[in-house]
Amino acid sequence: MVGGAGGAVAVHNVMEAMGLMAAPAKATEPPELPAESGRGTTVAILGAGLAGMTAAYELNKAGYECTILEAQDYAGGRCWTVRQGDAIEEMDSRQVCDFDDDSSLYFNPGPARIPYHHQGILNYCKAFGVPLEVIVNENRAAYFQNDGAFGGEPVLNRRVVNDSRGYIAELLAKALNQNALDQELTPDDKEMVLEFVRRFGNLSSDDTYTGSSRAGYTTAPGAMLQSGEENEPLELTELLKSDFWRYKMHFGEGFNQAATMLQPVGGMDQIAKAFERQVGNLIEYNAVVQQLRKTPEGVRVVYTDASGSEQALDAAFAICTLPLKVLAGLETDFSPPFQNAIAACDYNNAVKVAFQCDRRFWEEDYQIYGGISWTDQAITQLWYPAGGFHNQKGVIVGAYIWDNDVSDAFAAQSLEQRLEQAIAEGNRIHPNYGAEVNRSTGMSVGWGKLPYQLGGWAEWSDEARETAYPLLLEPDGPIYLAGEHLSYLTGWQEGSVLSAHHVVQAIATRIQAT
Amino acid sequence: MVGGAGGAVAVHNVMEAMGLMAAPAKATEPPELPAESGRGTTVAILGAGLAGMTAAYELNKAGYECTILEAQDYAGGRCWTVRQGDAIEEMDSRQVCDFDDDSSLYFNPGPARIPYHHQGILNYCKAFGVPLEVIVNENRAAYFQNDGAFGGEPVLNRRVVNDSRGYIAELLAKALNQNALDQELTPDDKEMVLEFVRRFGNLSSDDTYTGSSRAGYTTAPGAMLQSGEENEPLELTELLKSDFWRYKMHFGEGFNQAATMLQPVGGMDQIAKAFERQVGNLIEYNAVVQQLRKTPEGVRVVYTDASGSEQALDAAFAICTLPLKVLAGLETDFSPPFQNAIAACDYNNAVKVAFQCDRRFWEEDYQIYGGISWTDQAITQLWYPAGGFHNQKGVIVGAYIWDNDVSDAFAAQSLEQRLEQAIAEGNRIHPNYGAEVNRSTGMSVGWGKLPYQLGGWAEWSDEARETAYPLLLEPDGPIYLAGEHLSYLTGWQEGSVLSAHHVVQAIATRIQAT
Repeated sequence: MVGGAGGAVAVHNVMEAMGLMAAPAKATEPPELPAESGRGTTVAILGAGLAGMTAAYELNKAGYECTILEAQDYAGGRCWTVRQGDAIEEMDSRQVCDFDDDSSLYFNPGPARIPYHHQGILNYCKAFGVPLEVIVNENRAAYFQNDGAFGGEPVLNRRVVNDSRGYIAELLAKALNQNALDQELTPDDKEMVLEFVRRFGNLSSDDTYTGSSRAGYTTAPGAMLQSGEENEPLELTELLKSDFWRYKMHFGEGFNQAATMLQPVGGMDQIAKAFERQVGNLIEYNAVVQQLRKTPEGVRVVYTDASGSEQALDAAFAICTLPLKVLAGLETDFSPPFQNAIAACDYNNAVKVAFQCDRRFWEEDYQIYGGISWTDQAITQLWYPAGGFHNQKGVIVGAYIWDNDVSDAFAAQSLEQRLEQAIAEGNRIHPNYGAEVNRSTGMSVGWGKLPYQLGGWAEWSDEARETAYPLLLEPDGPIYLAGEHLSYLTGWQEGSVLSAHHVVQAIATRIQAT
Repeated sequence: MVGGAGGAVAVHNVMEAMGLMAAPAKATEPPELPAESGRGTTVAILGAGLAGMTAAYELNKAGYECTILEAQDYAGGRCWTVRQGDAIEEMDSRQVCDFDDDSSLYFNPGPARIPYHHQGILNYCKAFGVPLEVIVNENRAAYFQNDGAFGGEPVLNRRVVNDSRGYIAELLAKALNQNALDQELTPDDKEMVLEFVRRFGNLSSDDTYTGSSRAGYTTAPGAMLQSGEENEPLELTELLKSDFWRYKMHFGEGFNQAATMLQPVGGMDQIAKAFERQVGNLIEYNAVVQQLRKTPEGVRVVYTDASGSEQALDAAFAICTLPLKVLAGLETDFSPPFQNAIAACDYNNAVKVAFQCDRRFWEEDYQIYGGISWTDQAITQLWYPAGGFHNQKGVIVGAYIWDNDVSDAFAAQSLEQRLEQAIAEGNRIHPNYGAEVNRSTGMSVGWGKLPYQLGGWAEWSDEARETAYPLLLEPDGPIYLAGEHLSYLTGWQEGSVLSAHHVVQAIATRIQAT
């Protein structure tokens, strides 16, 4: 009766004890630095990616004098969108984008989605007015394809997901009806679990799974006498032969993948451009860092500028956001343990492929609006655009590979071979794929081969996370490291933003203490 | 070995036999009528909703001379969006919308989402250039609330969904490990099912469910040493006490509710306005039909015009798209069985409520971007807008009720009482709800009380579907009925469109035969 009159406080306390009332996670706010607290303090920031620009933005607000050195001729780093005329330059190749000039025709070679709870980066989107829209991860109209099951044919997502639910429910109902779980459940709970399971799987009245409208129709319900004819359920034994259930079916429930997922309208680099509007005046582009030195006054950064001349930048502090693989190649004065820790981090050499299609065949022929199809072939995924619906043309992501064994082999091919493989494999999901993609617009990116990246994102082994990672969280003298690699959100822009916040706070605290 | 050399055809045949290769459902195309085939044939269309405008559009293209009589002063019928200055007029009340004048501040009192496979209406969106965006049905950041469980406190969707999966998996794993299902599965399949179930529920290594990152964190993973702390799993017994699992948790898997769901950018009436641009010249507004008569030459429709004068429209055919409850009240010459069939259809008196909020508290405080929270209170659902993210203001749907027992009681209240109830109940989901909604902007619509609708959508009992419904599919003389009520997609705009296509084809066939 805690809910009765006068019981509101009691209810509240009970709920707190149950962990239900935990206040909704507060947005991840940047540190609030006292105005002018950074006046007279210089900071050299290496890299104009999201970590570097976040740090510059926050420090600059408090009066710090920041300079950002950026190796490339644009800001954003991996927060990057390719459109007509843009180049992808790997170590040994250069591709120029030949998509039509249209705001919906773009390719995000790097990050392409933002979970709703990544409030660090979402706060900046809000503050800077970056329009967002929903990006679909889970689309029941997309496909799974696996060479080892269903004869290698693509199978509709909604059939796989809902027939699986049906079979799981049927098996559990059988066990319950056979009293196999009577030790586990009270009689009342058992009855409720059985009811739950029936609805979970949409079981027939005899507790078997004989198909469900959830899995779709061969003839959909329509007008007049068309009441619809449901798909026959997929065979459980075929489902078990597939790899769909190992993780692909559950992917959309992941903490960082579950709805609502968001994307900037018109490409991920809208975020980079928004930051650039704030701190672009602090960025020196085409500035390739060569050395990072400690000096009696702080740091000296030696770099080559756009003309190829060597330059030096002195500052009280440095924030180095370069990927660790790049940092490992610089001349530095890091302590040996620090240097070893930098070398201990692995990187994911992700690969993506994209094609412009002159017809949105996935919408017209397959009723696919956004989302992802999965395959056990090298390309792993096809991504359909979640914006520009019903436009004539669209850009399809024809591969997204993050298993280094697969992506390294894929990226080792010529550009032409990559596209050829992507098309051959895409054909296994959509038989008309090869005829539909505009091959001359095909582009690929192997993140391990981008000279200023040398990888897509950091991957810490459990051991390195224990031993090496903590060393890099502390500054080596006046030099602080920041970036997604210094977070538990590696591979996510949020990791970069939150890491930058921490370094900003650490420098501010140090300044305040002196 | 069907997949081996020369086996492609064999594979294809096997696949066809398995029902996997069913060609992707072809878009639902309108009938193709010969040009000029309708020249000289007059058609009176009753109602400028989607059925009426679809029929007019298709017939007009083939040269039929169509006149649409529309009782209201706008086209679209239930395809309707309310913005600043628009009125909701029930039989005994009138509300004028006081939202700010902003394209993202709108309320769809009627349909608000389109499943990806409703290609009839989607084809028109494409043809007429109506921009679409994703609308989120399932948002893992939304809430479930039930007075009978968890002390009545709201519980996060992702905890409910993923902890439920965990418990189902744990129970099934137990049964499998106890060999309870050995009769049902081969040893190989049993081992695979066990593996499947472990991944499905994210079980611990001992096959128990002890929580999962899928269910979220009390402290999310972040930068530095913040590796994150997962939520404790909800108690199974509390989950069982709730009504979440009866259907609310599974709602998003429904054939007509599963991703990808779409909405027109800026309000559902963008579709009505697009149709109006095509056939608006054929519409007489404020034309309230009184009589529908058979004449020797066809039909005579008697109506009052905008000035209140009685007018008559003669035509060879009539297409009557009026809701059956409205049609039942007209003076007609229908045969008695036809008249009885009209009376046999029930209607859902759905209710919706909306408020403008001067702060998008659901985004700022709860990280909710679109989607639906559920409650067992009368309001049933809260809908968060799936567009205009990060704007300052937003419109929240504060109730969507489709149980007539509940909606009739709700709608029987005064407008003020409705809002009061909606706020009191919304507070149970968001404790700050009452303080956040702008009460003076609150609007409600009881579809049963709209004079030209008399209900939200048709609901055929199984018996009436068998006996009455088929009678209405055939014309009564020159009079054809069309609308969502004459489909197996009642309540969906797609039903209206497809029904109109059938009637257009039926008239064309009849003309061709004469």
